[in-house]
Amino acid sequence: MTDHIRFLDGRLVLLDQRVLPHQHEHVVCTTPREVADAIRDMVVRGAPAIGITAAYGMALAAQGGLDLEQAAAVLRQARPTAVNLAWAVDAMLALPRAQILAAARQLHSDDIAINQALGDHGARLLPEGARVYTHCNAGALATGGYGTALGVVRSAWREGRLSRVYAGETRPYLQGARLTAWECEQDKIPCTLVTDSMAATVMAAGQVQAVVVGADRVARNGDVANKVGTLGLAVLARHFGVPFYVAVPCSTLDLACPSGAQIPIEERSADEVRGFGQSRWAAGVDVFNPAFDVTPAALVTAWITERGLWTPAPAEAGGAPAA
Amino acid sequence: MTDHIRFLDGRLVLLDQRVLPHQHEHVVCTTPREVADAIRDMVVRGAPAIGITAAYGMALAAQGGLDLEQAAAVLRQARPTAVNLAWAVDAMLALPRAQILAAARQLHSDDIAINQALGDHGARLLPEGARVYTHCNAGALATGGYGTALGVVRSAWREGRLSRVYAGETRPYLQGARLTAWECEQDKIPCTLVTDSMAATVMAAGQVQAVVVGADRVARNGDVANKVGTLGLAVLARHFGVPFYVAVPCSTLDLACPSGAQIPIEERSADEVRGFGQSRWAAGVDVFNPAFDVTPAALVTAWITERGLWTPAPAEAGGAPAA
Repeated sequence: MTDHIRFLDGRLVLLDQRVLPHQHEHVVCTTPREVADAIRDMVVRGAPAIGITAAYGMALAAQGGLDLEQAAAVLRQARPTAVNLAWAVDAMLALPRAQILAAARQLHSDDIAINQALGDHGARLLPEGARVYTHCNAGALATGGYGTALGVVRSAWREGRLSRVYAGETRPYLQGARLTAWECEQDKIPCTLVTDSMAATVMAAGQVQAVVVGADRVARNGDVANKVGTLGLAVLARHFGVPFYVAVPCSTLDLACPSGAQIPIEERSADEVRGFGQSRWAAGVDVFNPAFDVTPAALVTAWITERGLWTPAPAEAGGAPAA
Repeated sequence: MTDHIRFLDGRLVLLDQRVLPHQHEHVVCTTPREVADAIRDMVVRGAPAIGITAAYGMALAAQGGLDLEQAAAVLRQARPTAVNLAWAVDAMLALPRAQILAAARQLHSDDIAINQALGDHGARLLPEGARVYTHCNAGALATGGYGTALGVVRSAWREGRLSRVYAGETRPYLQGARLTAWECEQDKIPCTLVTDSMAATVMAAGQVQAVVVGADRVARNGDVANKVGTLGLAVLARHFGVPFYVAVPCSTLDLACPSGAQIPIEERSADEVRGFGQSRWAAGVDVFNPAFDVTPAALVTAWITERGLWTPAPAEAGGAPAA
């Protein structure tokens, strides 16, 4: 699936992921600011997907004759945690104006090929007939069109190694329930939806042989920033003896970032936790709503990239050997 | 708060917990079958509260001249996991018909006194200024009117030992978001609502000094059946070095049950996970929806009862020393 991010007739057309799976609507952007708004409002989300989207945002700036430095600044601050956003914007900014659109298209198609490669590497780590737990949506919708964690799932399914995916619903934004379940349905991959609070039961019962997640940023020492809930899954996986894999393109490795402690964690609005969509089930109560958490490298079994398994730098003070 | 279960003018009037906190509606029961339906449909929930409700259901049978054995059978099978339900029904069944209503009222008022006693015991385990994480609603609404886990919180708050409660929202039924947050607001206890997936972040950051939960049934060896999500919290608490307390009246201890493996775990409908209330965010995807999970005794720091700390029986094959 690659039509969720399209650059058509000089406009960027984004599938509105906020209203999936019930509605298929699109948001059209013609300026970098509109693209930044779409990223902030989560029309599109997922670290690689927002990188690609931001690159097209730079292409809009280039074709419109706008100040490229200014466009880059607007796009970079749309969301703070994913490293791919700044990485893609900076890559476009380094190019002559006339080459940016072609480079954005190349980034998009490269991402698909990269995800297929990492998916194939990851699939080989799974046992025959594996059942896999995943969190949030690290799928086609979160990337150029194949997926990181769901790329591993797709490759394993194609090779006949996978029997089922367990999708954690991923409160508060329900990317698992709305997006991962929908992607699995599109590809006819058997999927069981659970609430995030059921992961421990699933693991305790031996129902999954691996946990596979994506990431928004991986620090040089292997610490992983990903959708909130990932840290809890990693602790559970360690407790129950289930391998815990992080599937990322190399563009998500932030070698300039020493450890998870340096990764900025976005806090989002209280209303996301007080309800969902138009439903409100809690009123004025205080809310803590970190969008991401940091999983220490020591809890990660392996980091899967398009080049095979990645080995983090030795920790500077105690820490995380690579698997 | 003791007016959520009232026996008035020969009828049982239940506050409808399904529509809290937005609406304050009541369901009126005049037969044991209506009471069983109200328990099954979660008009009232929480192990001690459904025990009290079922006792009043027996009082309805008694005053209506119905077959008491038959009424007991209908009530017992309303929900399978909580031991208090069968315990209360059997206690009423052992009495002469004319004494059942008074005994049910006594059970109700005893429950409040018992919860106050266990709350006071539990509060002494908390450090000064404690912040406590709790799950689901083990509060006034789940009991006769004071609470088990929230009983500990209430006693600690009254004694000035508590600074804040973190309430996990408790998908799929959102008892934390709807009921615990609301109870804290009524009592002016500072409360922060989080999604269940944020518990690891809260603990990793040292934001809480204890996890306190209730239980639906505790086996002789100390294994704890409680709202799904409890097991994950216990694993996280162990990992992050946070004490994990289970607050229960002695009526929730099932000494006839050797271990958690013998506790029946209710599975509820897929629609609870596919959405909430009138909202649906996932369509036909398969769902696994266990309402409870079992936390092994080895992960429990202490079991708090109205008589002080309880010590489980030595495990029959490897296992769980009491704290």
